[in-house]
Amino acid sequence: MVKIAVIGYGVVGSGTVEVFYKNLESIEKKIGESIDIKYILDLRDFTGTPYDEKFIKTFDPIINDGEITVVAEVIGGINPAYQYVKSLLEAGKSVVTSNKELVAEKGAELLRIARDKKVNFFFEASVGGGIPIIRPLHHCLSANEIDEIAGILNGTTNFILTKMISEGMAFHKALSLAQELGYAERDPSADVDGHDACRKICILASLAFGKHIYPRDVHTEGISMITAEDVQYCDDFGSRIKLIGWASKRDDKAAVMVCPAFISESSQLAGVNDVFNAILVRGDATGDVMFYGKGAGKLPTASAVVSDIIMAAKMNDNSRSLYWDDSEQPFVLDRNEIDNRFYLRLICENKYETLKQAEKMWGRLVLLHRNGEEENELAFVTESINEKKFENDCALISDTAEIKGKIRVLGY
Amino acid sequence: MVKIAVIGYGVVGSGTVEVFYKNLESIEKKIGESIDIKYILDLRDFTGTPYDEKFIKTFDPIINDGEITVVAEVIGGINPAYQYVKSLLEAGKSVVTSNKELVAEKGAELLRIARDKKVNFFFEASVGGGIPIIRPLHHCLSANEIDEIAGILNGTTNFILTKMISEGMAFHKALSLAQELGYAERDPSADVDGHDACRKICILASLAFGKHIYPRDVHTEGISMITAEDVQYCDDFGSRIKLIGWASKRDDKAAVMVCPAFISESSQLAGVNDVFNAILVRGDATGDVMFYGKGAGKLPTASAVVSDIIMAAKMNDNSRSLYWDDSEQPFVLDRNEIDNRFYLRLICENKYETLKQAEKMWGRLVLLHRNGEEENELAFVTESINEKKFENDCALISDTAEIKGKIRVLGY
Repeated sequence: MVKIAVIGYGVVGSGTVEVFYKNLESIEKKIGESIDIKYILDLRDFTGTPYDEKFIKTFDPIINDGEITVVAEVIGGINPAYQYVKSLLEAGKSVVTSNKELVAEKGAELLRIARDKKVNFFFEASVGGGIPIIRPLHHCLSANEIDEIAGILNGTTNFILTKMISEGMAFHKALSLAQELGYAERDPSADVDGHDACRKICILASLAFGKHIYPRDVHTEGISMITAEDVQYCDDFGSRIKLIGWASKRDDKAAVMVCPAFISESSQLAGVNDVFNAILVRGDATGDVMFYGKGAGKLPTASAVVSDIIMAAKMNDNSRSLYWDDSEQPFVLDRNEIDNRFYLRLICENKYETLKQAEKMWGRLVLLHRNGEEENELAFVTESINEKKFENDCALISDTAEIKGKIRVLGY
Repeated sequence: MVKIAVIGYGVVGSGTVEVFYKNLESIEKKIGESIDIKYILDLRDFTGTPYDEKFIKTFDPIINDGEITVVAEVIGGINPAYQYVKSLLEAGKSVVTSNKELVAEKGAELLRIARDKKVNFFFEASVGGGIPIIRPLHHCLSANEIDEIAGILNGTTNFILTKMISEGMAFHKALSLAQELGYAERDPSADVDGHDACRKICILASLAFGKHIYPRDVHTEGISMITAEDVQYCDDFGSRIKLIGWASKRDDKAAVMVCPAFISESSQLAGVNDVFNAILVRGDATGDVMFYGKGAGKLPTASAVVSDIIMAAKMNDNSRSLYWDDSEQPFVLDRNEIDNRFYLRLICENKYETLKQAEKMWGRLVLLHRNGEEENELAFVTESINEKKFENDCALISDTAEIKGKIRVLGY
């Protein structure tokens, strides 16, 4: 009999308990023995659930109970999740988590403890909700060198961008709608400013490249500056604006970034709409492989937690393989070592003078047009150009033109 | 030191050896010990490879060598692959294979032997080439009940249909082009008639539903009857024609079919073009999850074989979980127990008489139009209707109208 504990009875926690008991018979068949939840830890009072007698309000019974071999941490955030998970692993218990912040900030350290203690630390639910990505990325692509990962990793921003593109909604109106529908928090900054997507690309890239990538090292831009005009120009370029988290291996370093980007309509990523997520993985042998599905939500995320519980219960000792090293040297490239194409929208004092200046600095430009274009408006896409040089050039150009839109053009 | 053998040095076999040695260092890191290929079995002569001394021409050294614990079978077809694999498993060796015909026809028997002997029988490469699908379907979705699977499972036919749709090419011209480019065999019937897709949906559905589904029980239609006119009408319906293998759980039975179908442009499957494959999995907790990538090709398929080798080498004993039972009772529903919507294109003696007759039999119809429509031409999509009744009705209607096109409309 395997005994487990669930820490946190919020959205994901209650979903985890629900999915666990709903599928208990097939779960036990897969594990090959019986399994039950012994404790559910939450500070709040829950009565009238079928699990009333399992609720506890302190951590001690879990850490001190030798019967407990697997714990699901589904409270989110760094504190107290970090202290809980660390002491559980040190006590020789396997931990599964949906906590992307914890894995993105503390993954290397927690994976090292798990390895030392020969227990498992799994986090399938931390990226892509119910989309299987962590385990496929690691196991099934284990015969590949992974060169690049690019994903639509945040459903809230993808919903907002979809409304802006398909219905011409302004950003703030689309955000309000997302809040009304429960897709966005009252404080939407973690989603809208790209931090949520950043944590997820950090986890994926750490796993793919074998070294921890910290969110603080990743240049992250959100979508709040995107306008209806940008959407129109993007359409003229045969593309769609998506918030992309991407990571690309460059020799012994990695280029990693989160930014809104023009994505060609012919790309599979361009067709990913509403709250759906998708992750494109480019391997040297497989070529492009994409994983698609709902990236959030109670039951999808809970099902990923439960599948990790099954794996952790089945494999008593550490699988050795799900692992990355800490990175002491800066592993992420600085922006002045990264080139990208850019879309730029300008309101100029003298349109043709600005165009002349732009072509002198950046060479060949693809000029773009939109319905209702202003007389002194100029929009174009550059060739690939060094990010730092482009920043400096933009400072020069803004002497005689106001920069109204600036978005990268990515080739995924 | 793990010693393995590779049976077959054709496209997939030589790719397997190539990917294996290219990634040997990271493979050994993942397994946690050293590994090497001891034998490569092929009847043909290969000289000048870096592996000349490993080639053998008979099966006996492999089966008799106690050092060999994992064997990759990559010859394809039932004979002699079936005899080889069966005796390897019975001798207590794990087997990984890319052989979809073998798994679709003999999977239940081979999985049972593997379980009895506590060894592994893995076949990630048998479906979707390098797309990780078998293991994610089983492990990561293990906390879901899977209700439906639908996929574009054959790259050759998808390439042909893409050319017919995007360039208005006729079927035979698109087939010739596919043959020129090496995407289609000289005898293209296994692809074009749907048999390849049938084997793959049988494997996926057997795994998802836990009972063996045999290709002989699955109604299978190919794409050779599809015309440019059908493509035009499909466009008018806001859809794209795709060859779909689909399986749907219905109480204690399954509806399984391979057929060309109208797929709504808003579906993720509709955007899957050229030789790409995609598999949509509908779970009760995750909702829709899709896996996308190149479904064939030397290196993608080889990378899936190698990742299975890694898993088989890591897990000495049977994982218990990758399994389905044989099905003694007919598990697949007969067509007279299945309802579907149909598109129909008719050349009528009297168009309005035929329309009257059709509406009387099938109720509300969605009438379709195309450029260059003939005067006596009638095309429409029905509501959902019993397959058997529809067949009988079509026989009646063909007294006064010639059926030129008949394609299902599926809701994936």
